[in-house]
Amino acid sequence: MSTVVLHAVVSLDGFVAGPDDDPGPLFDWYFNGDLPLAPQDMDDPAPGGLRVSAASHAYVRDAWDGVGCMVIGRRLFDLTDGWQGRPPAGEHVVVVSHRPRPDGWHPEASYTFVDDVAEAVATARTLAGERTVSVAAGDVGGQCLALGLVDEVATDLAPVVLGDGRRFFGHDTGRHLLEDPHVVIQGDRVLHLRFRVRS
Amino acid sequence: MSTVVLHAVVSLDGFVAGPDDDPGPLFDWYFNGDLPLAPQDMDDPAPGGLRVSAASHAYVRDAWDGVGCMVIGRRLFDLTDGWQGRPPAGEHVVVVSHRPRPDGWHPEASYTFVDDVAEAVATARTLAGERTVSVAAGDVGGQCLALGLVDEVATDLAPVVLGDGRRFFGHDTGRHLLEDPHVVIQGDRVLHLRFRVRS
Repeated sequence: MSTVVLHAVVSLDGFVAGPDDDPGPLFDWYFNGDLPLAPQDMDDPAPGGLRVSAASHAYVRDAWDGVGCMVIGRRLFDLTDGWQGRPPAGEHVVVVSHRPRPDGWHPEASYTFVDDVAEAVATARTLAGERTVSVAAGDVGGQCLALGLVDEVATDLAPVVLGDGRRFFGHDTGRHLLEDPHVVIQGDRVLHLRFRVRS
Repeated sequence: MSTVVLHAVVSLDGFVAGPDDDPGPLFDWYFNGDLPLAPQDMDDPAPGGLRVSAASHAYVRDAWDGVGCMVIGRRLFDLTDGWQGRPPAGEHVVVVSHRPRPDGWHPEASYTFVDDVAEAVATARTLAGERTVSVAAGDVGGQCLALGLVDEVATDLAPVVLGDGRRFFGHDTGRHLLEDPHVVIQGDRVLHLRFRVRS
């Protein structure tokens, strides 16, 4: 049975991006280290690749390797162009959207478009098998939490105050208690935290 | 020269209280331990007193002992009735408010009412001497951060999602970078973090 993990890089004041969707300094830690993060960067010395500190690398690489399927909203899909059909973690992506897959968009990619959050998570669980379902923060993530579909919250806390922007869980999720973090790892410009959701 | 520390107990989604000003489960860690926190509780076995875990006690007691003066907004003053003239930390309180001290309210207490945030911090620095000025989060804290008056941010991060409520820094503060935390202490239902503000 897969675990559903809600993931976000978040500011100290609970934002995952500025009002313009730009994460700005929240993502500094993705680019300030020596170790390439994404598999496709392994043989790619291009400076544009993700390169993180040793502490972050061990944690994130392990987390990403465990992912079988991602669940994202249409906003993130559009912003990243769906990572051109190559998800940063796992082999499958479920996009929560009322609009279908764009015509002719990377027909080979295992991207499924579903217009209901609960159905999206169920589909992702099937696709992930025993591996993790990683749900992106924001509106979709917040809806998953509100519906009781999230097992863990993984927070990469950046030492940044954004002041305003896109909220961690989108709109009001109601109140939820988590366990104390079972992961507390200090990286360079990030503190990796992981909390189980209390059932 | 005193250090100005902005302090808050905050949820994972960046709220310091619910919409009704109730911190709810954010304050669980203040009451779930064996060690009395406030000096006035030392000889007071009443269950209403603050009693925290050993990890939290060592950190918080030390932090509170270092405080010379608190800066708070009128909302917190009214909510707590100014702690009946006995601040939880330090001997002096500066209240940022357009309204004066209530008539006849604890005339013996060293509470100063000032209607300007910058002047409030300057007054608090004088009162604190070499000791710490502790600024409460929320609107006043956010204004202090925006004005560049804050040296450190002390966050007691509770494993709680509130969904909505009073924001950590009140309204938009603009963007601010902090250093990586120099304090990371795991308590029981709280993670104590402390960040220096980048100048």
